[in-house]
Amino acid sequence: MDEFSCRRRALFSGAPFSAAIFHNWDAANGHAASFAYFSGCGVDGAYLVLRKGGGVVFANEMNLRQAREGCAYPVKMLAHRREGAVKQLRKACGGGKVAFAPHEMSAARFLALRRKAGLRLFDASERIGNVRARKSESEVRKISAAARIAKKILSGLRPWDFATEAQLSAHLKARALAEGCEVSFEPIVATGKNSAKPHSEPSATRLGDFVLVDFGVKKWGYCSDFTRCYFRRRGMREEKAYLKCKSIYNELMDCLPECREGKDVARLAEKLMKRHDMPPLIHAIGHGIGMEVHEYPHLGAKSRDPLSGAALAIEPAAYYAGKFGVRYEGMAVRSKKGWKEI
Amino acid sequence: MDEFSCRRRALFSGAPFSAAIFHNWDAANGHAASFAYFSGCGVDGAYLVLRKGGGVVFANEMNLRQAREGCAYPVKMLAHRREGAVKQLRKACGGGKVAFAPHEMSAARFLALRRKAGLRLFDASERIGNVRARKSESEVRKISAAARIAKKILSGLRPWDFATEAQLSAHLKARALAEGCEVSFEPIVATGKNSAKPHSEPSATRLGDFVLVDFGVKKWGYCSDFTRCYFRRRGMREEKAYLKCKSIYNELMDCLPECREGKDVARLAEKLMKRHDMPPLIHAIGHGIGMEVHEYPHLGAKSRDPLSGAALAIEPAAYYAGKFGVRYEGMAVRSKKGWKEI
Repeated sequence: MDEFSCRRRALFSGAPFSAAIFHNWDAANGHAASFAYFSGCGVDGAYLVLRKGGGVVFANEMNLRQAREGCAYPVKMLAHRREGAVKQLRKACGGGKVAFAPHEMSAARFLALRRKAGLRLFDASERIGNVRARKSESEVRKISAAARIAKKILSGLRPWDFATEAQLSAHLKARALAEGCEVSFEPIVATGKNSAKPHSEPSATRLGDFVLVDFGVKKWGYCSDFTRCYFRRRGMREEKAYLKCKSIYNELMDCLPECREGKDVARLAEKLMKRHDMPPLIHAIGHGIGMEVHEYPHLGAKSRDPLSGAALAIEPAAYYAGKFGVRYEGMAVRSKKGWKEI
Repeated sequence: MDEFSCRRRALFSGAPFSAAIFHNWDAANGHAASFAYFSGCGVDGAYLVLRKGGGVVFANEMNLRQAREGCAYPVKMLAHRREGAVKQLRKACGGGKVAFAPHEMSAARFLALRRKAGLRLFDASERIGNVRARKSESEVRKISAAARIAKKILSGLRPWDFATEAQLSAHLKARALAEGCEVSFEPIVATGKNSAKPHSEPSATRLGDFVLVDFGVKKWGYCSDFTRCYFRRRGMREEKAYLKCKSIYNELMDCLPECREGKDVARLAEKLMKRHDMPPLIHAIGHGIGMEVHEYPHLGAKSRDPLSGAALAIEPAAYYAGKFGVRYEGMAVRSKKGWKEI
């Protein structure tokens, strides 16, 4: 069975719905990862309707030819008039419950599908997230490639060849491009006090003796995510805190086989942070990663998301408000043979 | 009055709602332009609540410091627990109708605000779109800068220094970075038959004698959008069709002062296309442009969107299925002195 049929089968296995609908953002600035995951297609403004036995993509006339390239399902033309389009979608979905991903659909689209097309929409976020969380071998290869490229760029990085945070950030983006990738998110480059903000935006601040870089690339549609800290001289207090994060990271990696669900990783991290005398985390210890930088499984204290087949980014960190922050981040995937750092 | 107060005042002037709420995408791949437009702030997962007399931003603890930089309103910490956050938002919004932008909010967020926070949400897309469409002088300066940079890159472009569509596209992105910009959308580079698809994706196809490039940059948060066709030799049929598009573009620019609403531009374009013996357009003749590549005013056949103060991209085109497509695209802004090409 091909990969897209496997994905569809996983989505419908024992599901309380008879169809699923996905829409690829009409907005200029975002694509719905699940749309691409289940269809292999990436054109704007298209719908994917899945049933147990197959699926269909509806695309605008203008994008019809583009949509057919690489698409796992037949592509039909979406009717020009709204009434016609509504009928097409209603017919394709049938009369039962229709799964959708509320985080990946705009409120405008949701309201149109419910009110105009009369669909009985069913929030299937968790099921969709968990299907996507279980990576196939080909997905692991793509994620590993993205990880390899990001690590190569970070390990060869000489931050002080650049004057400011913004210049270093632009360099990282150029390096990603030169490797035939996109960045998977806007690189975070934070020096001095700026590093105390976990999501600091690169500014015209001149690089001091300590720089935090959080960076990843997207290769073949899959993301990587790493954080490294750089020191111009030895023995800084920032370096000591950073090395503790690295130790915690390594201990956590060793203990991953003991974890079954997201919350197990969160608890383990809490224990390790305490043991190393670090302040409590102000963000999760990490996150699932794949076609999106942040996806299932969640690693929050209450998360019951299963870890089998997952790809994770793990990022122990410590922030000292108004002073500095440090973070070490790496990635691991879980295959049948167990966890493997990538 | 500062720019953000002007924007807020325009939003509430004669409005049928007493508050407005915006959320900046929690998704990794998109930011809500209206959130940034009304707040001056850009952190993930934050809410902006506006009332006639002022506003407030609620950000996660982790992003609090970052949110305060450049924000036009006080920033408060969003409660960790959902119940607390719901109370904060309900209180800030008051009991009346609350405007929102359904295209810029996920269905998940919409459902939470309506069901959990009990907000009486009101679709204010059109009003928000029309407020954003009317550009201030400082916005025109930013858009003009984005236009200038993109035109410079396109006019210096030597397509045949590169072997494939994908390589030329990567070069355009690198050039944007080198100019301290982002691309405003993934560049379209299409050679030969690929150009017949308006949204062709750059591939490993080797560049032939004819290349279409649709490209823009984002500078200081504002977008540009241009299309140029390049020919390795003179007298190709593609060049003839391209020159017709360019003529239509120029005639359209001359006639813009006669247009009051979006539909006037659409009708004018239709007339000109016919007069030049070109096939009917399969997409709109153009679009408003600003913080997003596509925004108000719409230029569809039924659009009543006013053009005063607008920034437009105009793109006459002709597509011959399976053969080739050509497009010429430029930009214009309308100030008190009238239309000006940029």
